[in-house]
Amino acid sequence: MTEASYESRPLDALNNARNKRVIVELKNNKQFVGKLKAFDIHVNVVLDEAEERAEGEVKRKLGTIFLRGDMIVMISTE
Amino acid sequence: MTEASYESRPLDALNNARNKRVIVELKNNKQFVGKLKAFDIHVNVVLDEAEERAEGEVKRKLGTIFLRGDMIVMISTE
Amino acid sequence: MTEASYESRPLDALNNARNKRVIVELKNNKQFVGKLKAFDIHVNVVLDEAEERAEGEVKRKLGTIFLRGDMIVMISTE
Amino acid sequence: MTEASYESRPLDALNNARNKRVIVELKNNKQFVGKLKAFDIHVNVVLDEAEERAEGEVKRKLGTIFLRGDMIVMISTE
Amino acid sequence: MTEASYESRPLDALNNARNKRVIVELKNNKQFVGKLKAFDIHVNVVLDEAEERAEGEVKRKLGTIFLRGDMIVMISTE
Amino acid sequence: MTEASYESRPLDALNNARNKRVIVELKNNKQFVGKLKAFDIHVNVVLDEAEERAEGEVKRKLGTIFLRGDMIVMISTE
Amino acid sequence: MTEASYESRPLDALNNARNKRVIVELKNNKQFVGKLKAFDIHVNVVLDEAEERAEGEVKRKLGTIFLRGDMIVMISTE
Repeated sequence: MTEASYESRPLDALNNARNKRVIVELKNNKQFVGKLKAFDIHVNVVLDEAEERAEGEVKRKLGTIFLRGDMIVMISTE
Repeated sequence: MTEASYESRPLDALNNARNKRVIVELKNNKQFVGKLKAFDIHVNVVLDEAEERAEGEVKRKLGTIFLRGDMIVMISTE
Repeated sequence: MTEASYESRPLDALNNARNKRVIVELKNNKQFVGKLKAFDIHVNVVLDEAEERAEGEVKRKLGTIFLRGDMIVMISTE
Repeated sequence: MTEASYESRPLDALNNARNKRVIVELKNNKQFVGKLKAFDIHVNVVLDEAEERAEGEVKRKLGTIFLRGDMIVMISTE
Repeated sequence: MTEASYESRPLDALNNARNKRVIVELKNNKQFVGKLKAFDIHVNVVLDEAEERAEGEVKRKLGTIFLRGDMIVMISTE
Repeated sequence: MTEASYESRPLDALNNARNKRVIVELKNNKQFVGKLKAFDIHVNVVLDEAEERAEGEVKRKLGTIFLRGDMIVMISTE
Repeated sequence: MTEASYESRPLDALNNARNKRVIVELKNNKQFVGKLKAFDIHVNVVLDEAEERAEGEVKRKLGTIFLRGDMIVMISTE
């Protein structure tokens, strides 16, 4: 695989964020922040040291969580 | 399979939670707690000794339940 | 197939409920109770001697019914 | 195929209802009644001598209709 | 293919309606009427001499239209 | 492939509209008008010289746009 | 592959926008603007130097973001 085709895949961008803290926004407007430990082609993700936030405030401390891909709108690095 | 690729899959994280008590949050905002007995690639799950909770209170005792994957938002360990 | 992998599949848990009375809750909040006669990988189910219930009261007697899997949230034994 | 596995499939239950009058309830709460002429694995169905009902009253006479499977919640025999 | 299996497929019923005027009802409650020219397994359809109707009145004259299958609830002959 | 089977496919009707101005109506009730440059089996489409319209008035001039197929309800020629 | 068939694919139009600034509109009416770095057949996209906008105003600066394809309505060049 050439570098060009490698760079063209969105899941590779997610791979660059592995082990970094990411913000995950869901269709129900909930926002979770944690260290990205795992993801798959369905965009299911696992976060470590996760917390739910609302308007910048921590709402819940959650440890390790699994989020189902079809609920995810956006993933960004913190 | 190398350990690295193993760690990258969200369903492996679920496997680590097998036989432990987990909290499952659904798209309809219902929350179920129980011992994780089984799951599949659709994230269908089976919980033993399950109960429905609302705002931290037990609402219903349910025994063994099957939850359809496409309703699931988040799974975390209790 | 080893017993371990067998136990890990949610549809096997449904199989244990075959010919027993189950409660099926749908996305539209309707609840159906009946004897589980059949299901498939889409979680389509067939119930015998089925009835619709609302808040613990029988609302309709229905005989044999087919419920489409993508409407199902939870299946539990009565 | 053994008889046991045959009995376990929900679409076989639908097959038993072929050429009988069935009630089909949709996600938009509409209810159609007619003779079940055809169905497929998506649960698309064709009804003959169909009518739409609301609260037990005939609302429209429709002849032969095609209903798309992903709108269907429940099918029962009349 | 035997005649019996042929008759069991909903898309064959649609085929019988080809070049006839059909009523197509959508999930957004819109209703389109036109001559059925084409359809596929997703129930995407093409209507000729199409018009949109609301409560029995013609709302728009549209010529040839393509309707996406996943929006369709019911197709019946006029 | 015989001509008859060719004519039966909705995407062929779309092909006849290529390079012509089409009206695309979405599930969110937005309406886009433009020259149809490309489409695929998911009914993803690309329009050139596109504009958004509301009640017959141009709301936005947009140039080339990509519209995701699962949002599309209807495509008609202008 | 002939040039004609190449031109007919919507994802090729997206490819022409690679490394250019694009506007992405979502089903929840949110609007993100950024440099298109990657996309795939599900229309998952990655934007660099991304920002969220509302009514023409920058609402949030976001860096690199991943947007899940099934939330996307429209992509246009800025």
